[in-house]
Amino acid sequence: MNSSGKIKTADANFDNLLRIFTVPEGQNSTLTKIEEELSRNLNEFLRNHIVTEERPLKDIEQDFLSSHIPDQPEFVSDHTQHLLDTVVSQSVHTSSPGFIGHMTSALPYFLMPLSKLMIALNQNLVKIETSKVFTPLERQVLGMLHRLVYHEEDHFYSQYMHSAHHSLGAFCSGGTIANLTALWVARNNVLKADGHFKGVEQEGLFRAMKHYGYEGLAILVSERGHYSLKKAADLLGIGQEGLISVPTDQNNRIKPDALKATISRLKQHNIKPFAIIGVAGTTETGNVDPLDDIAEICRQEDCHFHVDAAWGGAVLMSKQHQHLLKGIEKADSVTIDAHKQLYLPMGAGMVLFKNAGATQAIEHHAQYILREGSKDLGCRTLEGSRSGMAFLLYACMHIISRAGYGLLIDESIAKAKYFAELIQSQPDFELITEPELCILTYRYIPEPVRQALKDATEEKRQELNQTLNELTKYIQKKQRESGKSFVSRTQLNPGQLDGMDTIVFRVVLANPLTSKEILHDVLEEQRQIASLATSLLKELSG
Amino acid sequence: MNSSGKIKTADANFDNLLRIFTVPEGQNSTLTKIEEELSRNLNEFLRNHIVTEERPLKDIEQDFLSSHIPDQPEFVSDHTQHLLDTVVSQSVHTSSPGFIGHMTSALPYFLMPLSKLMIALNQNLVKIETSKVFTPLERQVLGMLHRLVYHEEDHFYSQYMHSAHHSLGAFCSGGTIANLTALWVARNNVLKADGHFKGVEQEGLFRAMKHYGYEGLAILVSERGHYSLKKAADLLGIGQEGLISVPTDQNNRIKPDALKATISRLKQHNIKPFAIIGVAGTTETGNVDPLDDIAEICRQEDCHFHVDAAWGGAVLMSKQHQHLLKGIEKADSVTIDAHKQLYLPMGAGMVLFKNAGATQAIEHHAQYILREGSKDLGCRTLEGSRSGMAFLLYACMHIISRAGYGLLIDESIAKAKYFAELIQSQPDFELITEPELCILTYRYIPEPVRQALKDATEEKRQELNQTLNELTKYIQKKQRESGKSFVSRTQLNPGQLDGMDTIVFRVVLANPLTSKEILHDVLEEQRQIASLATSLLKELSG
Repeated sequence: MNSSGKIKTADANFDNLLRIFTVPEGQNSTLTKIEEELSRNLNEFLRNHIVTEERPLKDIEQDFLSSHIPDQPEFVSDHTQHLLDTVVSQSVHTSSPGFIGHMTSALPYFLMPLSKLMIALNQNLVKIETSKVFTPLERQVLGMLHRLVYHEEDHFYSQYMHSAHHSLGAFCSGGTIANLTALWVARNNVLKADGHFKGVEQEGLFRAMKHYGYEGLAILVSERGHYSLKKAADLLGIGQEGLISVPTDQNNRIKPDALKATISRLKQHNIKPFAIIGVAGTTETGNVDPLDDIAEICRQEDCHFHVDAAWGGAVLMSKQHQHLLKGIEKADSVTIDAHKQLYLPMGAGMVLFKNAGATQAIEHHAQYILREGSKDLGCRTLEGSRSGMAFLLYACMHIISRAGYGLLIDESIAKAKYFAELIQSQPDFELITEPELCILTYRYIPEPVRQALKDATEEKRQELNQTLNELTKYIQKKQRESGKSFVSRTQLNPGQLDGMDTIVFRVVLANPLTSKEILHDVLEEQRQIASLATSLLKELSG
Repeated sequence: MNSSGKIKTADANFDNLLRIFTVPEGQNSTLTKIEEELSRNLNEFLRNHIVTEERPLKDIEQDFLSSHIPDQPEFVSDHTQHLLDTVVSQSVHTSSPGFIGHMTSALPYFLMPLSKLMIALNQNLVKIETSKVFTPLERQVLGMLHRLVYHEEDHFYSQYMHSAHHSLGAFCSGGTIANLTALWVARNNVLKADGHFKGVEQEGLFRAMKHYGYEGLAILVSERGHYSLKKAADLLGIGQEGLISVPTDQNNRIKPDALKATISRLKQHNIKPFAIIGVAGTTETGNVDPLDDIAEICRQEDCHFHVDAAWGGAVLMSKQHQHLLKGIEKADSVTIDAHKQLYLPMGAGMVLFKNAGATQAIEHHAQYILREGSKDLGCRTLEGSRSGMAFLLYACMHIISRAGYGLLIDESIAKAKYFAELIQSQPDFELITEPELCILTYRYIPEPVRQALKDATEEKRQELNQTLNELTKYIQKKQRESGKSFVSRTQLNPGQLDGMDTIVFRVVLANPLTSKEILHDVLEEQRQIASLATSLLKELSG
């Protein structure tokens, strides 16, 4: 609090407190200086303030032990210094060009002041009364994305984009809520009102199942489907066992034949497959399911076709690469995260529906808001109060535009192809999955071991592979701890390795600031770390 | 894009595009100037840029008609001017002291630069790898709120606050997700694994109901419960009919006897009441249910006791008024929105669980993140990727502190009491609900009509009341359109009006900048608007 001197009465206290709402931070305050530093050079700010060497989490926790809310106020400047020393210094430099292990990237500069403006406006998108222009703005942004996916004609958008009785989709906090919303709509449609039965939304799942005579419901997705789908199956009362994993081919894409066989088996047990999910950019490998094939199966089986394009959806911005998502236009619903390859800050997911009336299956009203016939967006969203993130995407659509986004996507994919070739040209690295979008996986494997693995007995191969897994984990951890660069890791069962449990480095190349030089350095650093893992290397050569 | 001149090749194009990630906005750019204006005087900025007189939504929509993503980039400065003219100008001045109709208020100044810092850091709270210090920070903030509600001892917090196997709650985008999370935990607990049955989360609701032999499940809440609960009942497969509305008394508080009677009736039909919700601050009237009584009934019936304190939870910060929420410490789970009376920007909800192990009922893992034993917060949250909003609440807890929050709450409640007295002292206004927290409702009623209403026949009373409803709607709409002040409206069935459907003005007095003078002006403006409603007034006097 900008308070000073002794405070005598409750009134004086309150007048003092009011200052945080009325008196801006001074020109020379610590906070203003930080803000200027941020605006002048974000990367330098982060480089200067984030400590590179990793402190163990246990140590960091020591600064966050008290469960008491502080009794007395701190000065803004004092607390800001504390935040710099304690929080900013120990945060993750997510926008660093050397951090190529996760899906967060550098943000365009103009988004920082615009975010501040968005927060200052503090609109609530749940209803027109607290959002006004933000409602048509959000509807337009959803319309743009809808058109990007579905290519409907002008008259479709003039009819539905601003219609009180329709929504082309919904903004939400992220892909998890987007996927959940899509499956909620799908479930409510397959168990809709029928005769005396008032629909699952009214009567619940138990009575719905009895009415329709099913023994179970199923959602089908490849074994590479996102973990959020398990949550959705649980929440919606389907049960995680109702989320059926379908085998994938060598390229991590769902096998259409296996999908068909699974559906037949389910139907024999009187289990209704009501939704099939195509993945457009798996989280671990970036591969895209054969969407056209899935669409055809959905048509035959009268299933809801959802595409989880949380990661890959933005690829539609590229005229060069949009063909990779062919078939997405047949989906009943699509998830796209703007905080991934559309370069927005965290917290901007979207679900789109082909049919503008689809969300009527989850429509709800109340007395004081969301009245029937209002244009309140909250009638057909899972969330209630929501911030104006659409404002940021609106600005990006205009400032970056389709042309700029296309270039960003093209560059990311080109970079991933470059890195794949680089890995393949090394004697001691092995590419595990080729980049289809800008994600790839690989591992370190000393040259002699590579040959040994090929000639070894089954038992020996398992053993070597196990040690290589340990080595990959070791390298990934040490590299992260040294703080210069970061790759993530996951476990795959690659076909070329006969499906053995294989730990791999996972790399996401969406940060436009990541240079070829950095990619070379990442491999070199991994090679050096590997050379220090003497006991594992001994095991491998023994 | 800060591009200039003609662009020749794709490479040159990309280098140009990179500038939005590397070159900050110039000192004299439109965006920098706006930011400075914002920082210097937010209210003046909003007053200068938001057009007061309301433009019809249909008109505003004309600026948002195209469904095409722009093909070519705009300069940042040009687009910023467009945003000012088209978006900012038509937004809602949610922080205006005269806008006392919704739950958004002015924000403390220091939150704007801190929000910018939070966005620049762009941490993802789903997992340690992308949040590091933000994870212990969020756990501490949840611990502080948990202690505020539950008053556990130090050893409880040292054991659980940072435990990989426990969570004291979850941050989420808002109260809707918070309520949904609480009910999800409750549902999974009542239908948990038992013998060969693997639990509802695995096998789904249909098999769970057959295993447990229930005909239905029920969630009970007063008729003033928030509409988000209907969504939760739908999503979780309970069905909206399973959300049972219990009658309230004259003060909009649930009737414990009616609650007990409802439970008995449900049980006779073999419907299992598994969760009872106490409302601590109804959205429409701000009343608090008798939490102690509900707690006792929950204990007897072995029900999950959830308190929806999205609005009222912050009142615990006030030592003077915390007693209003007595009994909340017995709740199994509590919803609190930080974007309401904790003065954070939109998008900061929380759910707290008394039992640190409660969220194990919704725990989930994946290969590449959320591995068993990790401290990743994402294992036990409904959402996946999440922003670092906890950082802002952490700062508020220190800068405003318990003392400052207490003052803010006390002042809001005092102001509401003042306004209630002011209304009661007017011959032509009628207080409908007394403020228990800082929310109240009232209506305009010409003096002669007031008397006439008392003496009229039943039929005449209905008729007069109907016309008064029209008058209230008219005044509310005209006042909103004139843009100087804003009250909201809702429909109640007040006991003192024999439960007639009654439209009322609803006022929320949480903005610390709202003065007594403004309250006088609001009534005066309403009186003046009323005098223009000649045809309605004629009807009333006829």
